[in-house]
Amino acid sequence: MIRVGIFGGSGYTGQELLRLLIGHSGVTVTAATSRRFAGVPVAEVYPVFSGLTDLVYTDTSPEEMAGLADLIFLALPHGVSMEVAPFFIRAGRKVVDLSADFRIRDAATYEAWYRRHTAVGTIREAVYGLPELYREQIRTSRLVANPGCYPTSIILGLAPVLRSRWIDADSVIADSKSGVSGAGRDPQITSLYCEVAGGFKAYKVGQHRHTPEIEQELSALAGGEMKISFTPHLLPVKRGILSTIYAGLERDVTGEEATALYREFYRDEPFVRICRAGQLPTLSSVVGSNYCDIGVTVDKRTRRIIIVSVIDNLIKGASGQAIQNMNLMCGLKEETGLPAIALFP
Amino acid sequence: MIRVGIFGGSGYTGQELLRLLIGHSGVTVTAATSRRFAGVPVAEVYPVFSGLTDLVYTDTSPEEMAGLADLIFLALPHGVSMEVAPFFIRAGRKVVDLSADFRIRDAATYEAWYRRHTAVGTIREAVYGLPELYREQIRTSRLVANPGCYPTSIILGLAPVLRSRWIDADSVIADSKSGVSGAGRDPQITSLYCEVAGGFKAYKVGQHRHTPEIEQELSALAGGEMKISFTPHLLPVKRGILSTIYAGLERDVTGEEATALYREFYRDEPFVRICRAGQLPTLSSVVGSNYCDIGVTVDKRTRRIIIVSVIDNLIKGASGQAIQNMNLMCGLKEETGLPAIALFP
Amino acid sequence: MIRVGIFGGSGYTGQELLRLLIGHSGVTVTAATSRRFAGVPVAEVYPVFSGLTDLVYTDTSPEEMAGLADLIFLALPHGVSMEVAPFFIRAGRKVVDLSADFRIRDAATYEAWYRRHTAVGTIREAVYGLPELYREQIRTSRLVANPGCYPTSIILGLAPVLRSRWIDADSVIADSKSGVSGAGRDPQITSLYCEVAGGFKAYKVGQHRHTPEIEQELSALAGGEMKISFTPHLLPVKRGILSTIYAGLERDVTGEEATALYREFYRDEPFVRICRAGQLPTLSSVVGSNYCDIGVTVDKRTRRIIIVSVIDNLIKGASGQAIQNMNLMCGLKEETGLPAIALFP
Amino acid sequence: MIRVGIFGGSGYTGQELLRLLIGHSGVTVTAATSRRFAGVPVAEVYPVFSGLTDLVYTDTSPEEMAGLADLIFLALPHGVSMEVAPFFIRAGRKVVDLSADFRIRDAATYEAWYRRHTAVGTIREAVYGLPELYREQIRTSRLVANPGCYPTSIILGLAPVLRSRWIDADSVIADSKSGVSGAGRDPQITSLYCEVAGGFKAYKVGQHRHTPEIEQELSALAGGEMKISFTPHLLPVKRGILSTIYAGLERDVTGEEATALYREFYRDEPFVRICRAGQLPTLSSVVGSNYCDIGVTVDKRTRRIIIVSVIDNLIKGASGQAIQNMNLMCGLKEETGLPAIALFP
Repeated sequence: MIRVGIFGGSGYTGQELLRLLIGHSGVTVTAATSRRFAGVPVAEVYPVFSGLTDLVYTDTSPEEMAGLADLIFLALPHGVSMEVAPFFIRAGRKVVDLSADFRIRDAATYEAWYRRHTAVGTIREAVYGLPELYREQIRTSRLVANPGCYPTSIILGLAPVLRSRWIDADSVIADSKSGVSGAGRDPQITSLYCEVAGGFKAYKVGQHRHTPEIEQELSALAGGEMKISFTPHLLPVKRGILSTIYAGLERDVTGEEATALYREFYRDEPFVRICRAGQLPTLSSVVGSNYCDIGVTVDKRTRRIIIVSVIDNLIKGASGQAIQNMNLMCGLKEETGLPAIALFP
Repeated sequence: MIRVGIFGGSGYTGQELLRLLIGHSGVTVTAATSRRFAGVPVAEVYPVFSGLTDLVYTDTSPEEMAGLADLIFLALPHGVSMEVAPFFIRAGRKVVDLSADFRIRDAATYEAWYRRHTAVGTIREAVYGLPELYREQIRTSRLVANPGCYPTSIILGLAPVLRSRWIDADSVIADSKSGVSGAGRDPQITSLYCEVAGGFKAYKVGQHRHTPEIEQELSALAGGEMKISFTPHLLPVKRGILSTIYAGLERDVTGEEATALYREFYRDEPFVRICRAGQLPTLSSVVGSNYCDIGVTVDKRTRRIIIVSVIDNLIKGASGQAIQNMNLMCGLKEETGLPAIALFP
Repeated sequence: MIRVGIFGGSGYTGQELLRLLIGHSGVTVTAATSRRFAGVPVAEVYPVFSGLTDLVYTDTSPEEMAGLADLIFLALPHGVSMEVAPFFIRAGRKVVDLSADFRIRDAATYEAWYRRHTAVGTIREAVYGLPELYREQIRTSRLVANPGCYPTSIILGLAPVLRSRWIDADSVIADSKSGVSGAGRDPQITSLYCEVAGGFKAYKVGQHRHTPEIEQELSALAGGEMKISFTPHLLPVKRGILSTIYAGLERDVTGEEATALYREFYRDEPFVRICRAGQLPTLSSVVGSNYCDIGVTVDKRTRRIIIVSVIDNLIKGASGQAIQNMNLMCGLKEETGLPAIALFP
Repeated sequence: MIRVGIFGGSGYTGQELLRLLIGHSGVTVTAATSRRFAGVPVAEVYPVFSGLTDLVYTDTSPEEMAGLADLIFLALPHGVSMEVAPFFIRAGRKVVDLSADFRIRDAATYEAWYRRHTAVGTIREAVYGLPELYREQIRTSRLVANPGCYPTSIILGLAPVLRSRWIDADSVIADSKSGVSGAGRDPQITSLYCEVAGGFKAYKVGQHRHTPEIEQELSALAGGEMKISFTPHLLPVKRGILSTIYAGLERDVTGEEATALYREFYRDEPFVRICRAGQLPTLSSVVGSNYCDIGVTVDKRTRRIIIVSVIDNLIKGASGQAIQNMNLMCGLKEETGLPAIALFP
């Protein structure tokens, strides 16, 4: 049994890690920290765990945590992960960081979009935790930077056509829609039921901090620097991201050919499904599962390819992908503990 | 591997059976019938199954089904189950019937609330499939009548106080609220998103067909015939039933004492959880799981006990309970294949 | 033009007052206060007002307000209204108070359920603002205590059968379900979209502070002290309350007779509608309007009457009723400015 | 009083017409037809009308209707309007047609996207009913083709930048999201609560029949034929459309300059509001009102303009706009009977 700890376990992401790890056959959760709920049983904060775990939130220090766990998940705010990750690495522990702190390879870019980086030297240790692109590096990594939710949906949606050079890299537009759990559990007016239900809005147009992360990975795929228009929207659902991605085609292809390209690219992937040509995925097909479903359409009239990509933002977009990375880092079967069938209806 | 078949597999109940059985380690699904979708892959009708099963809906006859399966789930409308169940029993197959056809022991009562019964002789074969009350009979039964969703929540909510004779049996009121999936997948105006979202209503007050089923089981627990007021409501959620149950107390007890009675009554049950005194369950704690959560409050001012009971109507209220019964009938561990942790948020 | 001011105008109740008063032909809003948003245009806090009003939230003192307005709405928390209402009365202004501070005639009862009362002498000035019961007193009152949302739905639902002595007053149970806007706009975890959507729960069973207010008015109708069981629930909708009310009948009546009693009782009421016998109201029929819709059913099997009553909690349950009271106090036509047709779908 | 009739009054669009017309001071509804509900009071089909109208759905013939009404709204399916509109025109009646039958000026284009057109000669009679672009022609028209819901949001969103030639007409992408009421009240699986709630999907990508209507009007604004990518999505809300529109800029402008252009373009419009620079509209700001709210952002990094446009699909996107057209055709004040303040929360 591998011993795992969760640093910052009381938000939705931490809760989802716990939910999945409790049912995971290869690990045991030895500690979950929460400043706010230290001393309170996890099952009181989240009644879904009632009768299923005796775990109590603690205010465990990094030093204690290093003694309790072989691998630590950091479910901390941006800027806090960078303060503890280097210690765990030095202590010989493995780390999966769910914050943005080690996703951006260029410290100056990180600082332009986020804040000052206090562990620049550790950035080069980190592997970007998208198994579909970096599986082998993840296996041997000590520090995995778990991707953002929006980036996961967009990068997986674009990887095949970028690497094959089918599209004009300057023409890419990603119109993304996310459920409310992406905003976390901190009480704020904009996340209230009465503000969200029956509504819909775009936010941070051209300014969302996932932009440099997306562009870093797309540029690597395209073999040259590229920029995209990325517009996030707030959907009145609890879970799920759907990204509608537009790009100008550099060659004439049919929807069938494009679908074939995607099927080939993701042929051996356990958590990517490609819809049949002419079909598009729906959020409902993945909510509750670790899948990313992708559908591809070619609009001959405008010579554009339109790609629709869906994930559960808390699973493939956060905690599920973190466990997929943990499985790889620890030599476990990649699918272990990860839900496949969505909960529908 | 036990071979199971589903008769009537394309509604929400059939889909939920498939979802749970595909992940079940002790069985294999050999056939799922659907007149409407015969010939169509299950994964096309429900994309959640994409990549997870090659099963195709068929129009298999009962005779063929008897050759394909050791146990058959009947997810058929009331009145249709009674036409095929006797055949399967005679053919030596086990049956879990999710319709109401074999729940009511008195044929005249069935006929008063439903329709003419054409297999009266088979009723006495049937065991009412509530494991918490009939576990031993279920183990040896050939025909289990899987309980209705409302009855499951209400009977489990009242069993301890009825059997202990703490309450006035004539005073019982059950105010129940159900999600929309209980109405099935047939397209009808009253189940449309625009009719349900943002709304709420009571329906069939004093006339719902689950009433005789509830009264049959409550009377057995109370040791004498009793009647209740039962009011179903339609909640704007997809899954879940919450029943608020009121009864006059025959003796002075505290909330702590009542909670202790419930904990003792359900001490060894794998799928019933009792909230701590002063706590009440919420729908979110069970949606996606096979649990029934129950909370008990005593209102000294009015000398009433108020019991709140929650289940996922498609799992503990239908397909999960059916699999729990199957596990018992087939000598498998009772919890096999049944989800414990709810999906939250 | 009557000049009106709103004290505490930035919550949902204050916003709803503004929404209705801006369209009201007989008044002009001269001030709306908000400590949090002082200096911010109303249309920035609530974009629905964009282009429709130049009003800016202010931190106006009671003294200034008395100079600006003939009638003042107090949309303040319990305990704060009592600090300013006496001043406005002394200054010769009319007051409609939306808090609970002047609803309970017995100060000791108020203090048992709420907090210490610092304006006991002013309580006897107040008229309980339910026009269907106190219309004439409201017309000449200087201080109207606007009813709570739950009490409005329950009192209107029970008045006819209580006054006619048809029911056993000790048998009354009110199972009420409210939308989330009743919890206000303060950010708290329990009001977050992810906590509410797809969920449902009872809360404060036997302990909700509307209980003494309900019992005070029901006792007056029954002609003797009575107690009820009152269970509030949180519905995953933005607006609306539905109360399902149960009572034992003292005489044999049919549903038709009960319906006739209600139609007669509310014959001349502009904002109460009684469903035809056998019909029940739905939340959707009143959300967005000032109506209270009531349906009545008799369950012969258990000799109980079951009454379903629905309102929009922000309109008939709060701001609409406040304006109805204002109209009466100011000699305007009672219906002025109040929406009749609900927004559906 | 102008006498108006509604042909096809029992769907959501017909219901919304009735809701608004009942509160309209200048007209009286003399007939509303419905084959399905002929003989049934409107208030039984839609309880929101209870006590507010005695109108009964009828199966009135066009001949009778011409005798009863001065202006007729056609809320009929595509292909049916064209069968009755010519008769009403010949009979000297005014017609507002909510179907697509007379929106497309080129019959061949109509036939390519819809079906055979049987009243080609009447097309040239029709004026496209977008008051912001065709106000003067509408005033004198006998037949107004009321715009589609998606087209209303997209055309209003693009008109200023197309007419000013600021953008590359070949670069336009409209990513639109609509509430479920746009699918009407016919019961179909895809509109069921359980299929929609918690979900989200794109549909008919590159194939939606509103495409030629949008391109016809955009081409007129651009002064030359243009094509767009238009992707509709199904939002889990009842009402509302939000379109996120992307276009490449032909000149360097700031967000402030773009906002100023829009403010100037729509300066005198009663039902278009432009957000302050840096602000974007939300669905909640217009649901329940006849407004179209528009926000404009410039993304310097990609040299694109991003426009967000929101409407209530049943009001500005259908019945409200139809009444706005009626007001113009009948010489009434344009705003009469049209709701301004949205219902929030």
